[in-house]
Amino acid sequence: MKVVKTIPELKEFVQTEKKAGRQIGLVPTMGFLHEGHLSLAEKARKENDIVIMTIFVNPLQFGPGEDFERYPRDLERDEKLAASAGVDCLFVPEVEEMYPQPSIITMTVTGRADKLCGEKRPGHFDGVATVVTKLFHLTEPDKAYFGLKDAQQFAVIAGLVESLNFPVEVIGVETIREEDGLAKSSRNVYLTEDERSKAPHLQKALQLGVQTAERGKKSPAEIKQLTNDYLQSHAGAAVDYVELLSYPELEPLEKAHGKMILAAAIKYSKARLIDNIIFNLN
Amino acid sequence: MKVVKTIPELKEFVQTEKKAGRQIGLVPTMGFLHEGHLSLAEKARKENDIVIMTIFVNPLQFGPGEDFERYPRDLERDEKLAASAGVDCLFVPEVEEMYPQPSIITMTVTGRADKLCGEKRPGHFDGVATVVTKLFHLTEPDKAYFGLKDAQQFAVIAGLVESLNFPVEVIGVETIREEDGLAKSSRNVYLTEDERSKAPHLQKALQLGVQTAERGKKSPAEIKQLTNDYLQSHAGAAVDYVELLSYPELEPLEKAHGKMILAAAIKYSKARLIDNIIFNLN
Repeated sequence: MKVVKTIPELKEFVQTEKKAGRQIGLVPTMGFLHEGHLSLAEKARKENDIVIMTIFVNPLQFGPGEDFERYPRDLERDEKLAASAGVDCLFVPEVEEMYPQPSIITMTVTGRADKLCGEKRPGHFDGVATVVTKLFHLTEPDKAYFGLKDAQQFAVIAGLVESLNFPVEVIGVETIREEDGLAKSSRNVYLTEDERSKAPHLQKALQLGVQTAERGKKSPAEIKQLTNDYLQSHAGAAVDYVELLSYPELEPLEKAHGKMILAAAIKYSKARLIDNIIFNLN
Repeated sequence: MKVVKTIPELKEFVQTEKKAGRQIGLVPTMGFLHEGHLSLAEKARKENDIVIMTIFVNPLQFGPGEDFERYPRDLERDEKLAASAGVDCLFVPEVEEMYPQPSIITMTVTGRADKLCGEKRPGHFDGVATVVTKLFHLTEPDKAYFGLKDAQQFAVIAGLVESLNFPVEVIGVETIREEDGLAKSSRNVYLTEDERSKAPHLQKALQLGVQTAERGKKSPAEIKQLTNDYLQSHAGAAVDYVELLSYPELEPLEKAHGKMILAAAIKYSKARLIDNIIFNLN
């Protein structure tokens, strides 16, 4: 596995592979890899000739007071894991490599960005759209893989690609979970023992909400209330939001129908966790 | 020459050429072709295997009250001219093909966009950046060609490419002029006979300003005043602006030095004309 830190090195790798007619799969990450990331790399491995993984903690998508500085990093371990998952090229740029001078372009995401996490993290998805645009241009992938745990991020990126005609197929990959149902996340390391034991209730609450909808309760307010009540009494965390929206448009619903997302965010002492279920009702 | 109107047809053409390893040169235009556009196509022809020209009058870059509706169009003539200049594929989409639904992404250009024409045409360069982004993604060019008559547009596009790491080399091509010095422009057809006879004074005024700087006058205010005075007494038009700025950054200067642009815009009864000289003083 080739590890590159600079854009000229990366472009040289990409150009060589493109000229040889090889299909490139991209897995953008912020590092501190877990099985979720590795499942993306493995899927990319199966579906492409070449797999490029990027590890970049993007300051543009962190707000003031968020965890940019203390976001967990372990490059040595990440390199081994990426290699074991079949990554061909690992791009690990410094912040100065990605943002050498002030950009003359600001990208603003509307619609899909101002709900759910976007409402709590203003500018977050603008930062995501910008870095994904840059990574797409730098790696020229045929396919790019994103985890569906960040379902809103996936909706934003799918909308970005559609709105600006990127020649990239974006693929959402199912969330990988611990045995007790907790979604794998780099931020799980922030949890205390007690919090860790209660965190699986996040997914359980969402399952309860979806089952309620599937059994015939169609009022979004009631579905959200039930999910919220369960979280309040079981998760031992502050509930940031519980939302039921159309997917991927993320529009409010008058009643539960079609393709939807039930999503929630909760806050423990040092970690904010998100999870969701995307489901269909006809 | 292949003429395509839809994105799927265009992408099929591009994919075939890319797979064959052919280098693509792109010439984006708004049509009503003149020798300026053809000189771009001819340069693209020399430097690439395949030349794609696009003709699209982009509503996003026209402000309210501007000439979007009456912008001159003559597709039949354009097709002949493009073919004669060696264009391989002419992409002529309808507005609905380029903007089928509201975009979830807004691109805003800062710095280089709020001077010169940008100040008079708010949002104009945001529209340019958006459509150029879409056209770059749709045609995946190795090189893209733009006329330096629109020097600010070129500065914005160069900044766009740099800021977002587009894998495209952008090439600015010298302005093509009538024998009397008037820059070729699709909007010249709007001029009355009397206006047409006076319009070459736009370039003459700029030459006068540059000569003044080259002869030692370093005060931007004086250089602009001289240029402006000449325009007022010779061009028979309202002077929209005369500006001397660094190029391509478009920053104001304390004194004339380095790479600069002297640019002006004037308004006749039905046409607003722009012209510029990019020059160096050490």
